[in-house]
Amino acid sequence: MRELTVELGERSYPIYIGQHVLNDIVPFFEKHGIRKGSPLLIVSDDRIAPLHLTRVVELLEAGGFTVVTHVVEAGEKAKSLGILEQIVGTALNAGLDRNSTVIALGGGVVGDLAGFVAASYMRGVRFVQIPTTILAHDSSVGGKVAVNHPLAKNIIGAFHQPELVLYDTATLQTLPEREVKAGLSEMIKHGLIWDAEFAAWCEENAERLLALDPEALEYGLYRGCEVKSIVVSRDERENDLRAILNLGHTIGHALEAVAKYNELVHGEAISIGMVGSAKLAVKLGHPENIYVTTKRILSKFGLPTRLPAHLETDAIMSAMMHDKKFKEGKMVFVVPTDIGKVEINKNVSADLVREVVEQLKQEA
Amino acid sequence: MRELTVELGERSYPIYIGQHVLNDIVPFFEKHGIRKGSPLLIVSDDRIAPLHLTRVVELLEAGGFTVVTHVVEAGEKAKSLGILEQIVGTALNAGLDRNSTVIALGGGVVGDLAGFVAASYMRGVRFVQIPTTILAHDSSVGGKVAVNHPLAKNIIGAFHQPELVLYDTATLQTLPEREVKAGLSEMIKHGLIWDAEFAAWCEENAERLLALDPEALEYGLYRGCEVKSIVVSRDERENDLRAILNLGHTIGHALEAVAKYNELVHGEAISIGMVGSAKLAVKLGHPENIYVTTKRILSKFGLPTRLPAHLETDAIMSAMMHDKKFKEGKMVFVVPTDIGKVEINKNVSADLVREVVEQLKQEA
Ligand SMILES: NC(=O)c1ccc[n+]([C@@H]2O[C@H](COP(=O)([O-])OP(=O)(O)OC[C@H]3O[C@@H](n4cnc5c(N)ncnc54)[C@H](O)[C@@H]3O)[C@@H](O)[C@H]2O)c1
Ligand SMILES: NC(=O)c1ccc[n+]([C@@H]2O[C@H](COP(=O)([O-])OP(=O)(O)OC[C@H]3O[C@@H](n4cnc5c(N)ncnc54)[C@H](O)[C@@H]3O)[C@@H](O)[C@H]2O)c1
Ligand SMILES: [Zn+2]
Ligand SMILES: [Zn+2]
Repeated sequence: MRELTVELGERSYPIYIGQHVLNDIVPFFEKHGIRKGSPLLIVSDDRIAPLHLTRVVELLEAGGFTVVTHVVEAGEKAKSLGILEQIVGTALNAGLDRNSTVIALGGGVVGDLAGFVAASYMRGVRFVQIPTTILAHDSSVGGKVAVNHPLAKNIIGAFHQPELVLYDTATLQTLPEREVKAGLSEMIKHGLIWDAEFAAWCEENAERLLALDPEALEYGLYRGCEVKSIVVSRDERENDLRAILNLGHTIGHALEAVAKYNELVHGEAISIGMVGSAKLAVKLGHPENIYVTTKRILSKFGLPTRLPAHLETDAIMSAMMHDKKFKEGKMVFVVPTDIGKVEINKNVSADLVREVVEQLKQEA
Repeated sequence: MRELTVELGERSYPIYIGQHVLNDIVPFFEKHGIRKGSPLLIVSDDRIAPLHLTRVVELLEAGGFTVVTHVVEAGEKAKSLGILEQIVGTALNAGLDRNSTVIALGGGVVGDLAGFVAASYMRGVRFVQIPTTILAHDSSVGGKVAVNHPLAKNIIGAFHQPELVLYDTATLQTLPEREVKAGLSEMIKHGLIWDAEFAAWCEENAERLLALDPEALEYGLYRGCEVKSIVVSRDERENDLRAILNLGHTIGHALEAVAKYNELVHGEAISIGMVGSAKLAVKLGHPENIYVTTKRILSKFGLPTRLPAHLETDAIMSAMMHDKKFKEGKMVFVVPTDIGKVEINKNVSADLVREVVEQLKQEA
């Protein structure tokens, strides 16, 4: 097992990562001040619940906790104010009070949703994350929680840090392959923005990671969380440094939107976006090797590196213009300057970006 | 004009109170860092908007601000997640960004609602309060913002402090009489819990306050805000001291609930509750004068001091039992120990409270 502390002053919290850490959920909860006198609420989704919920409930009840559960339909749609209201109804009926804890058992969707319940129920109660996807290593650091509005993703939310995160690599064994790859895309991102050695380690361990080897997962998730945590600790409220976490995301978000959120999953979209950023870097005079290496690593994971040709360049460009990273006629981009290093370039010309988008359609 | 600072470290903010302070809204906004580059959103309700919204919009636009407005139906029902979603829709369509400010122009309802929009939109943007009721002197200090759930009031919310509060006594001139009295009830409460001199001042100035005399209002609101601010500064997240602000509220909330929120307004309910607390105090051995004075002050304002006889004692008792202030077979009550002084008594017997409730029905 590995342990990591996300350093945020008095809101610091530990992440425990390893095979079967969930077996010790009761001692972990006791250690971190989760109260027994007040009911706990576990939020999960209907794909994860049949696989992992019963065991968590049984362990907690055996340990003397009172538990109530709320299972939502799997998928991004659960991140809505309507579902939040339903969950709060469950919480009220179960008598959750200010000493209660809300637990997210699931991926980023359940984490964001349950996290916003925890942030807003009685103006804030304790929160615990039990991530069950690889992608959720990203959402388990940083305290961002939110639901969607029909007009925009993640627009209604809060910063709310968990008391602890229990990351059991055993729960990941049931993940669908596509979700595995998509999650690894964000892990690779954490190498590309901060740590060339980790990026190289990811490449070397691609097969083990794709095969969900517990030891490889443990290290990969640990280092992925750690990189994000270093960045977030230095910039909790997203002022400046934190923007580097958006490598590949400006193009990626535009692709997701233009593909109407059903052709590409997030990790795939940012994979293409990271190749795009690497291409942009080279056009801006940074070493050619950035592009070659970025593309080689992502390909090794079977992640897409070519932009689907039927997605209109104009639509992609205009989706990016709506992105808040665009200011005064110039685009703001996270641009790699080497493998493991990026800069925020606030002066990228839209024409150059259009060129990159066009060329991304011609990638091998 | 009077100025007051609510001391909360880096979240400290000023309250400006006086006749026509709104005339200077532009310089106040400029002084307190409200940005011109990003649109402002003013939330108001359909009784206040026809009276006061146009002028505020015109002043701001003349000062170079871009303004969008969202008017909700007057009344407690507006404090819902559904309305919050509609307001966020307005914000998105108007292009509100992280440098935008949400402004509440209205009473406690609009303040709580717009405040929670500000707290959650993009995980938090700036917030300004322009209170238009006397009761809102209470909600403009403390940073509590929230919406209701069908099963519980104020259960979904946040702590979100405003950048500044502009309290123009001129806007209060249009308040319906019943709302005037109800708001003064909370003002008197701030005297009763903390400052005997202020309680006496309220009594002496009852006619002026009821007549909405600008000078009397200015001082009363100032001192009311100041008392609350002293309490909140010492206990921002509601741990202990802040509970004294609930004088009269345990009985008051129960009365509101049993009367189905349509017979008594909040200020009336807590007026009866404060008389009840005073009665309880005497039964617990505190000076008789607490009861006599409390009742005399409230009567002078035409506030109710007798509990409507048709409200069932059993229903009132059981509504109080649901209140979280009730623990382990004993009730927790804010009990006056003198005029201007209260204590939190965690050991009040339910039988004694029942006696008080019964006697409150027989008051003169
Ligand atoms: N808060 C943040 O900082 C942050 C960061 C990144 C992403 N996110 C959010 O995370 C969400 C995406 O997260 P995600 O990719 O984890 O999505 P997800 O939670 O929807 O999970 C993906 C799918 O896998 C299923 N699943 C999850 N765990 C499983 C398991 N162990 N076995 C079998 N099936 C399992 C889920 O039911 C779902 O169908 C998005 O809403 C995104 O906005 C948030
Ligand atoms: N956040 C806090 O700390 C806090 C504290 C106390 C109360 N509250 C909340 O405040 C709300 C009650 O506040 P309220 O009494 O101000 O209610 P309110 O906002 O509903 O206003 C009362 C009525 O007066 C009307 N009105 C307001 N200003 C007017 C004006 N200047 N002229 C004419 N009509 C006007 C309104 O349209 C409404 O019909 C409750 O929802 C309560 O939960 C919050
Ligand atoms: Zn991402
Ligand atoms: Zn009150």
